[in-house]
Amino acid sequence: MQAIQTVETVTTLSALLPRAEFRSALAIVSKVADKRPRIPILSHVSLRWDDAGMSASTTDLDLYVTARIPGAASDRAFNAVLPAHALKDMETRAPATDHVSMDIRGHDAPAILDFEGLRASMPGLDPSDLPSYEFGKAGARVEISAADLRDALQRVMFAVSKEEVRYYLNGVYMQPARRERGAGGPVGLRFTATDGHRLSNMFVGCDPGAVRWNLRRQGGAVAQGVIIPLKAAAFALSLLKAKTAPETVSMRLNARFIEIKIGLVDIVSKTIDGTFPDYARVVPVSNPHRMVIGTEPLARAIEAVSCISSERGRAVKMSLSRDSLRLTVNNPEMGATEMDVACAYDGPPMSIGFNAKYVLDILGSLASETVAIDLADHMSPALITDPATPGAKCVLMPLRI
Amino acid sequence: MQAIQTVETVTTLSALLPRAEFRSALAIVSKVADKRPRIPILSHVSLRWDDAGMSASTTDLDLYVTARIPGAASDRAFNAVLPAHALKDMETRAPATDHVSMDIRGHDAPAILDFEGLRASMPGLDPSDLPSYEFGKAGARVEISAADLRDALQRVMFAVSKEEVRYYLNGVYMQPARRERGAGGPVGLRFTATDGHRLSNMFVGCDPGAVRWNLRRQGGAVAQGVIIPLKAAAFALSLLKAKTAPETVSMRLNARFIEIKIGLVDIVSKTIDGTFPDYARVVPVSNPHRMVIGTEPLARAIEAVSCISSERGRAVKMSLSRDSLRLTVNNPEMGATEMDVACAYDGPPMSIGFNAKYVLDILGSLASETVAIDLADHMSPALITDPATPGAKCVLMPLRI
Repeated sequence: MQAIQTVETVTTLSALLPRAEFRSALAIVSKVADKRPRIPILSHVSLRWDDAGMSASTTDLDLYVTARIPGAASDRAFNAVLPAHALKDMETRAPATDHVSMDIRGHDAPAILDFEGLRASMPGLDPSDLPSYEFGKAGARVEISAADLRDALQRVMFAVSKEEVRYYLNGVYMQPARRERGAGGPVGLRFTATDGHRLSNMFVGCDPGAVRWNLRRQGGAVAQGVIIPLKAAAFALSLLKAKTAPETVSMRLNARFIEIKIGLVDIVSKTIDGTFPDYARVVPVSNPHRMVIGTEPLARAIEAVSCISSERGRAVKMSLSRDSLRLTVNNPEMGATEMDVACAYDGPPMSIGFNAKYVLDILGSLASETVAIDLADHMSPALITDPATPGAKCVLMPLRI
Repeated sequence: MQAIQTVETVTTLSALLPRAEFRSALAIVSKVADKRPRIPILSHVSLRWDDAGMSASTTDLDLYVTARIPGAASDRAFNAVLPAHALKDMETRAPATDHVSMDIRGHDAPAILDFEGLRASMPGLDPSDLPSYEFGKAGARVEISAADLRDALQRVMFAVSKEEVRYYLNGVYMQPARRERGAGGPVGLRFTATDGHRLSNMFVGCDPGAVRWNLRRQGGAVAQGVIIPLKAAAFALSLLKAKTAPETVSMRLNARFIEIKIGLVDIVSKTIDGTFPDYARVVPVSNPHRMVIGTEPLARAIEAVSCISSERGRAVKMSLSRDSLRLTVNNPEMGATEMDVACAYDGPPMSIGFNAKYVLDILGSLASETVAIDLADHMSPALITDPATPGAKCVLMPLRI
């Protein structure tokens, strides 16, 4: 009964939040807030009113995410640390209203929320326990088109390694670059990911003045690029894909942290402290035999012949002859499948095996109707490109079949 | 390479299956076929052509399901036992065609399938290893409206107990009945399920000639009804909810088995060998205080106030006063919520606690806009009915609050 009495003793309400903006902010921060954390505060959201206005922020100790809530009003500064998922649940299920009222009277008294119908009293945690980070001095500032960053992350992220042993492959490598090595041409950023079996790489141009790069690691060595952890890259991509994505994204980084500002949301992530391999050595430069094939028909046919694989990772054999590709899958337990797909190919007959899932991942990252697969022989890596995106390349190692 | 040669040596195709009917049959049987069974044949489907035409059947040793495939043609009888999920996957991913060709040459040679583009060779198992059952003599035959059976299962299934200790509550009890105890009136079937905390019960009338009941257990005792296992009931319900559901369902049963024929599908299930409790004793007959309330507003309000429960099963307190219901949830860790809902009530002020999830389950099973909750006091079971379905009753035990 006490808690209910608390609900009813509300007399002043210090903050008024627009409902739709509050919902958006909760949706974003609750992706990061842990559902069952070992440290309770990691399941909480900090709702804060200060000189910059109202914001919601949370962290899982890898990512620090802050979503601003425009249009809120408060009669004084506060920082209420409330359970993120319960708050999101409450917002989702409460009757429709334009605003939410909040009364915050310090972290030792429960926060009072009023959705005009649903009233709640919710105990919070002490804001001084919130984990924080020290960003340090920015060694680079970048302005980049949001659509370009989205495309680049989309093109390379599937190839990020999930193996913890080679931890320096667990992210997207981002480095300042020109479009072609050794050439002049536009300045921009090159994004690369690889797990040793496949590699995806994409160059994105930006206004030369928008990339200033001077990253110094401990000991004074200059870092050529930074490795953005998969989790941060995936989180940024989810925001970049949203309808509310802005036109331009600004980034700030040094050898330890990267900050990405996407519209109303600021993401800060540690970068991966390691050396990304010299991937350029594995990108084939002279694969003489080109097959050009429909992206969608090839993907559908690989899906179809893979139906007898217990895992999709099994080998699909590609047998190339003039203007025809035959796909074959053999599974000793489940039988065999085959299917033909029309293509343009004028090299010698060749059979080469690939991991079916890896080919599908690459095809799924493309935006074009056709794809070019350049081959040398059945032992050498294939180079996969599409005419719609000249700055992008994928490399895929063959399987022994 | 051998398997592929097998694909290519096909010269005669003995069966031609219409694609859409084949797809429907596979969708049904693959719900029963195990994905990773301890006994391999339980992940397989038997595709069979005999005097009755083409059918697909499978079992998990509890349920035996057969789906007929009308419109198929074959030049001889066969029974091919093929992996159900691989076959369904293949059908889903293969190019669109009107028909599928199959060539079956005994269980020791692979079956050959041709989707006009995707060709497959699939090894099968020996049909003589298929598990079977002996139904015995039917002690009852019932014809019932499919819509009535669907409604009855929908109304009671949520209350089936999942506890294995009281195994005789793990199903839906079905018994021949009149609408009211001791009264005359139409003959039909009564469906009941309970887990000891809640009970749901529904009477469905049928043509008196359509229910003939004479079930004898071992030892000669007459069974009053049969307990249909939850799995069989849920499977039947899924078919009854489909757009293709027929108007009438016919059942055949004895004290050990029940057979339910729904359109093209035959289900056979063991019944639960136990005695269903005399539930009628817990159905309140004189709860004098009636609350009438909107089904949807009550459900939404319970959802809203339960947002602070870590599990939805926590107690919701209902405080009744004249024409108003206040819902309250208290969670020592997460705070408190409350919300008011308009209702019609003219009894004395009363506070009573219920498991929030149980109330939501009951409200979700109703088809009507309003619901009546008849109460005696805060210790006694509530009787929940709706004006749209006079044959249905729910009983819910209160929680101490």
